[in-house]
Amino acid sequence: MKILILGGDGYLGWPTAMHFSERGHRVCVADNFSKRRLELELGTEPLINVPSLHSRVDNWNEISDSKISLSIGDLLNPRYIYKLLLQFKPEAIIHYAEQPSAPYSMIGREQAVFTQHNNVIGNLNLLFAMKSVVPNCHLIKLGTMGEYGTPNIDIEEGYIEINHNGRNDFLPFPKKPGSFYHLSKVHDSHNIMFACNIWGLKATDLNQGVVYGIETKEINKSTNLHTSFHYDHIFGTVLNRFCVQAILGRPLTVYGEGHQTRGYLNMLDTIQCVDIAVKNPPSEGEFRVFNQFTEKFTVNEIAEKVKSASEKIGIKVGIEKLNNPRIESEKHYYNPKNTNLLSLGLNPILLNEEIIINILEKVKIYKENIIESTILPNIKWNQNKG
Amino acid sequence: MKILILGGDGYLGWPTAMHFSERGHRVCVADNFSKRRLELELGTEPLINVPSLHSRVDNWNEISDSKISLSIGDLLNPRYIYKLLLQFKPEAIIHYAEQPSAPYSMIGREQAVFTQHNNVIGNLNLLFAMKSVVPNCHLIKLGTMGEYGTPNIDIEEGYIEINHNGRNDFLPFPKKPGSFYHLSKVHDSHNIMFACNIWGLKATDLNQGVVYGIETKEINKSTNLHTSFHYDHIFGTVLNRFCVQAILGRPLTVYGEGHQTRGYLNMLDTIQCVDIAVKNPPSEGEFRVFNQFTEKFTVNEIAEKVKSASEKIGIKVGIEKLNNPRIESEKHYYNPKNTNLLSLGLNPILLNEEIIINILEKVKIYKENIIESTILPNIKWNQNKG
Repeated sequence: MKILILGGDGYLGWPTAMHFSERGHRVCVADNFSKRRLELELGTEPLINVPSLHSRVDNWNEISDSKISLSIGDLLNPRYIYKLLLQFKPEAIIHYAEQPSAPYSMIGREQAVFTQHNNVIGNLNLLFAMKSVVPNCHLIKLGTMGEYGTPNIDIEEGYIEINHNGRNDFLPFPKKPGSFYHLSKVHDSHNIMFACNIWGLKATDLNQGVVYGIETKEINKSTNLHTSFHYDHIFGTVLNRFCVQAILGRPLTVYGEGHQTRGYLNMLDTIQCVDIAVKNPPSEGEFRVFNQFTEKFTVNEIAEKVKSASEKIGIKVGIEKLNNPRIESEKHYYNPKNTNLLSLGLNPILLNEEIIINILEKVKIYKENIIESTILPNIKWNQNKG
Repeated sequence: MKILILGGDGYLGWPTAMHFSERGHRVCVADNFSKRRLELELGTEPLINVPSLHSRVDNWNEISDSKISLSIGDLLNPRYIYKLLLQFKPEAIIHYAEQPSAPYSMIGREQAVFTQHNNVIGNLNLLFAMKSVVPNCHLIKLGTMGEYGTPNIDIEEGYIEINHNGRNDFLPFPKKPGSFYHLSKVHDSHNIMFACNIWGLKATDLNQGVVYGIETKEINKSTNLHTSFHYDHIFGTVLNRFCVQAILGRPLTVYGEGHQTRGYLNMLDTIQCVDIAVKNPPSEGEFRVFNQFTEKFTVNEIAEKVKSASEKIGIKVGIEKLNNPRIESEKHYYNPKNTNLLSLGLNPILLNEEIIINILEKVKIYKENIIESTILPNIKWNQNKG
């Protein structure tokens, strides 16, 4: 199958590309490197220097039977994406190509506007290009569990049956996103749902939880195929960040009371979920939503797990509560459903001590690279720049 | 009170400005004339040539005790809106400054992108400017009833109590917007709700129905204070359009089966509702939604009313069904609530024969101006340009 991966230079995009290439698919990766530019802007770096996408593609193509092709361009340029679809004619598009950080979107006006413009307009250009060029292609779009916020009812997958005043309807699940980034994903979801409805496009929206992990089978095939591992307060997800703090011998910093509960999943399961979506396309005109996580934890539970794994390898670790820079409920009901992917065969890799120790050992090797000043949060939800 | 009217050159913006000026408020109108540019692009014109905003402001200021001030600029330019707020320090902002046409947004990619970029980013810039400069100012934002679509349950005002699996929450009402324009309004609503939540801004979102009418007391004070009256398939609302078709002796063109039901209101009631919102601001951090319409009709009912009013003044009129260029339910449940504004004192002006005859008589005077080729629809929801 011909699979186009938008955002192929990213944390998830690159391992996803190798996964499908390894399985014999014709893969094209596209990127505009906007994430790398944001890293330069912010002075953050992945833990391990990530070779250029060109060289990773070259390295992969040397050791693999199946070749990945590379395209450089920006979804904000409509000519770029129309031409790419015309040339490559993908049967599935996996769309990771969005500004991925909630804290980044909360720095100030410029960053909020950049995030919504980049994500929403880029996605609109993609939808129009698909309609014109590959209307039967399956769009697999990365959303986020953060679109839902933390309602006091069970979170269904994209839609909910509502009974109201004696009548009922099956309607889009109400969203309460918690940052301008999360809002951009909600806007995308509405736009894609509409495009499916009026043009008959088919799309799967993967509302993903917090991802952790650093290795895949393909990454481990060579020393220069790895993906970015962020631990900073802007791009780093919480478990990765805690592992870095542990290796530094610093306390794990929990935002607020730490009862905030979220869905989590291993990077390997992200890839497994995307694979399942590709293998099981929706029907024409269908906008399908999968909640993509395997377990849920409070931040305190994640901290405790990292602490206890660290102690197993001889590292003593404290846990410290910080004033929460975000505005979010710190104690709330949280019961999101994730049955769609499970019923299609998702076999979760659950978080255990071995996995955390693996990450810790890897981080330890690159301890010298850690830029400590980028770990603690300085972006406040209610005090951002004008 | 100091009231800033964004989109002050528009159909509703200009009469709203005169209304508040007449009542002694200090009014500033701002516009970037993007709507006039779209008219040039599309070859449409209001029925009666609308004098420039500069000359209307001058004319008003000659005959009125209270003066309106004028500011030209674009919400997409953040420096413009920050400076304007700094100079004028409004206590209320009435935000009409958005691309207002669903069909325009459905012409093709460029127009869809223009609509979402202009509306969503302009509104974001405004929110950030308010937070920085006038955090206590009351934002009155024009939304649309079209954000809800036509769900099979009663439409509440912005929020709905949902009982689900034995638990309940009061959540944003699920939206099913029917065009890229309507989607832009949904995106705005989510962004404003978030800004109120994190920054304590106060906002009223007026989800307005279809507006008709041509005159206000202030408009009638002089011959050159009128507002735009659109009858074309892009900017014209249905009752206005039917009146023009009647005067031309053409059949009234109903899209599809004509059972589509919508909320309607007189332009005078738009102004009354905005006035009520200004007088009754929400509290700090509150995002309040009012459904702003006074009656609901099917398209067939509107056609019958125009037909019968026309016959009263000696014009024989037919009704013709066209293939519906839109994708929308033609037969559906529709029971939106509008109790918030009524409970604050809205005294509706209901549509009657006299009102329609008034519009017909006015249109008759300007019959020569009608550009007939702009009346019938040629923008199809599922066949737009790539």
